Amino acid sequence: MADTTPTTIRPLPASEVTSWDHTADVVVAGYGIAGVCAAIEAARAGASVLILERTGGWGGAAALAGGFIYLGGGTPLQQALGFDDSPENMAKFLLAALGPGADRDKIVDYCDGSVEHFEWLVSCGVPFREAFWAEPGWEPPHDEGLMYTGGENAAPFNTIADPAPRGHVPQMADKRTGEKGGGYMLMKPLAETAEKLGVGVEYDMRIQRLVVDGDRVVGVIAKRYGQQVAIRADRGVVLATGSFAYQQQMIEGYAPRLIGRPAAAIEEHDGIGIRVAQALGAELAHMDATEVAFFGDPQMLARGILVNGRGQRYIAEDTYPGRIGQATLIQQDNQAYLIIGEAAYEQALTTETSTPFFRQPPTWAAESVAELEADMGLPAGALTSTVEVYNRHAAENADPLLGKKPEWVTPIDGPVAGFDMRGFTAGFTLGGLRTDLDSRVLHVDGAPIAGLFAAGRCTSGICAGGYVSGASLGDGSFYGRRAGIAAAKN
Amino acid sequence: MADTTPTTIRPLPASEVTSWDHTADVVVAGYGIAGVCAAIEAARAGASVLILERTGGWGGAAALAGGFIYLGGGTPLQQALGFDDSPENMAKFLLAALGPGADRDKIVDYCDGSVEHFEWLVSCGVPFREAFWAEPGWEPPHDEGLMYTGGENAAPFNTIADPAPRGHVPQMADKRTGEKGGGYMLMKPLAETAEKLGVGVEYDMRIQRLVVDGDRVVGVIAKRYGQQVAIRADRGVVLATGSFAYQQQMIEGYAPRLIGRPAAAIEEHDGIGIRVAQALGAELAHMDATEVAFFGDPQMLARGILVNGRGQRYIAEDTYPGRIGQATLIQQDNQAYLIIGEAAYEQALTTETSTPFFRQPPTWAAESVAELEADMGLPAGALTSTVEVYNRHAAENADPLLGKKPEWVTPIDGPVAGFDMRGFTAGFTLGGLRTDLDSRVLHVDGAPIAGLFAAGRCTSGICAGGYVSGASLGDGSFYGRRAGIAAAKN
Repeated sequence: MADTTPTTIRPLPASEVTSWDHTADVVVAGYGIAGVCAAIEAARAGASVLILERTGGWGGAAALAGGFIYLGGGTPLQQALGFDDSPENMAKFLLAALGPGADRDKIVDYCDGSVEHFEWLVSCGVPFREAFWAEPGWEPPHDEGLMYTGGENAAPFNTIADPAPRGHVPQMADKRTGEKGGGYMLMKPLAETAEKLGVGVEYDMRIQRLVVDGDRVVGVIAKRYGQQVAIRADRGVVLATGSFAYQQQMIEGYAPRLIGRPAAAIEEHDGIGIRVAQALGAELAHMDATEVAFFGDPQMLARGILVNGRGQRYIAEDTYPGRIGQATLIQQDNQAYLIIGEAAYEQALTTETSTPFFRQPPTWAAESVAELEADMGLPAGALTSTVEVYNRHAAENADPLLGKKPEWVTPIDGPVAGFDMRGFTAGFTLGGLRTDLDSRVLHVDGAPIAGLFAAGRCTSGICAGGYVSGASLGDGSFYGRRAGIAAAKN
Repeated sequence: MADTTPTTIRPLPASEVTSWDHTADVVVAGYGIAGVCAAIEAARAGASVLILERTGGWGGAAALAGGFIYLGGGTPLQQALGFDDSPENMAKFLLAALGPGADRDKIVDYCDGSVEHFEWLVSCGVPFREAFWAEPGWEPPHDEGLMYTGGENAAPFNTIADPAPRGHVPQMADKRTGEKGGGYMLMKPLAETAEKLGVGVEYDMRIQRLVVDGDRVVGVIAKRYGQQVAIRADRGVVLATGSFAYQQQMIEGYAPRLIGRPAAAIEEHDGIGIRVAQALGAELAHMDATEVAFFGDPQMLARGILVNGRGQRYIAEDTYPGRIGQATLIQQDNQAYLIIGEAAYEQALTTETSTPFFRQPPTWAAESVAELEADMGLPAGALTSTVEVYNRHAAENADPLLGKKPEWVTPIDGPVAGFDMRGFTAGFTLGGLRTDLDSRVLHVDGAPIAGLFAAGRCTSGICAGGYVSGASLGDGSFYGRRAGIAAAKN
């Protein structure tokens, strides 16, 4: 089907399709984490499956990611490493951490299915090494398989639910070169599993619009090398096209704090899956929610104090750095400075558990906090009073203001360094299509749109305003499977 | 057209409408500020106009509102009261105040048309008294016509644009009883103007879905006393149905910080105008944006210091209280305490310009800040250090930390009172349909949806994340007029 009509994303009536270029029971748009899991499950359920991928290879953002999958409730890996967890405990934490308005049913469902999902990933060949990385940070420095990735063991969550690490990361083949990171090691066995199951793939295929028969989705129009291609989906279409981090109008209209700072997404994340479904009346959720990375060394942060543009502390510095990023961007207008004593600075540089990511030289070095305060241009007393209050309690190894754990609390005196970390944030979008527990895309009237399924970051998953590392590969894989199962049955 | 089929909001093909109960050139859904302005302009352009109102009378949320209309650029009222302003100066302020991602074209357009819009309102009979109310607060206590309503004269905006008051409020007939507030005095002459122009109104008519002929909107299905009613719109339908503050699922999915705290909206604000347009593929914008009221007496706030749950100041206390509300709810997790010295407290109570709104007795009274800090359960030093830094600069009548104006800065010493203001916020939603400068509802593909127009709080107007009092009646009336003009021409 060749066509030169202008591009539109409005649905095309099936009656206007003169011939179909491809046909499958289940058509999956996007060969990232959600797409591959949907394809595997649909194929296992007996459906013929065709994946449409806009780039020249499988992987999506997932293959470039660190690879965390947020799982818990007592996975074999958690158990082997001595951590107690239960679905209820996991849900309690996630409901506290993922923001007001989070989809409670989805979180409970996700927690209940988490152990089975871990086993499923392992059965597909995803490797996890039985080793725990205990340090604050973004990722383990080697090939450890488990880590805290949401501030479970930091204030305020360590008093809300029993802390358990849930960041499961596939064993990396070569962490040093970065070529085979956790995300790659997750995607590779899954793509191989899909291929063994006979899943078809068409690359260089950009989806443009959905094809409908009345209210039912029956296919997709895609573009390949300038030509329109019509793909019939006898049972269902699964949208798994990723976030809208690179669609400028959507960022401005829905998540404007990310203007100019997309990260951990790929340029292909242009929101197309969201938009073609919106054109059919699909409901959205949590479009303003964003993951926010903070480009400060967690080992430095934990040993210092982080202050805002007024010299005030605002977060327990030993928590998940993604929480620091969100608090900094959304609550502190992206203003942050790290203040750290000379001894703690040296310790952070030289500790065996040091992680050199995001390291920078100090912006200011001073003989005293008062001198640093003046050098930074802060009003007299703004920073010195903050440090005085911190030191007063640090002398008793406590942080009643923000609850940093005692192991990281030491008074700041003598020479100090200041790091200008204003604007040190970037991130990707978490909002998208509203889906049910079977990954059916919901219309604004509350009913599912017949024949349309979605998973991954083109949907609103378990996150509302908050985030934990591993939630995206986690709910993307989990609800990707559901999408494949539901579409195959359709 | 009687019908007992289940309610749906999906569009109905015109071919399925067997008979039309009403017909007009322009059909307006909602008889609030946006609806009445659309109706007036459509009628003046020669169209027959029918308003569908779901309650038993005109007014909507507007008639219950304080009545501010945000106007500037040199209105006759501004000029008569000695304030210089220009459209450029107004736009500079609004672009700084209304949040990242605000619709620049719409703001510039709104500022350029502001003087004409003021004159139009006056020509419709809306009264404004030439008097200025200079105090911090929500509303003038009497029938003054002009006031600062966005923090124009407070930090940080007073150094970004030349301060000019732009909160224009219709002269109230009886402020004491509250029966004829500014919003009522705005709506009444407009409703009378519409009636004189022969605009028809059908009350008790709840819109349910749009009627379409292909891609074009040609009517509305409404429900009245359990019966479905079909209304044909020969030229266009204008949606002016208000916010989604009372639609629980939308609040949870789009603006979850408002869960449990809707305010300054009416229960009829169920998002129906947004949803029927979404069902046609309409694009949304800034769905997370909210106005947030703060229920503290502005005269008290300006004379004291406002601190968060950690005892830290976070905003210039003499600014627009709506900014205080947003900062408290969104950036401080709804934690706020007012700390005020005894003398300042007495002054706030007894000043001639005192406004008794939102007054409460102190939660704590103490002989010193240290005692108050302990009574409040704050960590030792948390509040005392805040007050020390404040006092240090207040001694020189300055507030370098947050820029409160010198007239409000005095040291806090001696007996002191503390007010627990946690959870003192509530608000309404600002997000909605994305419209162009002619109030045409835009499809997600960027093109207008033929025959569909919208204005008021079912649209995303000039506000992104920020707010100024008068923006809702302001852009509602301004783009309501545009909707009426465009629909009549259609």
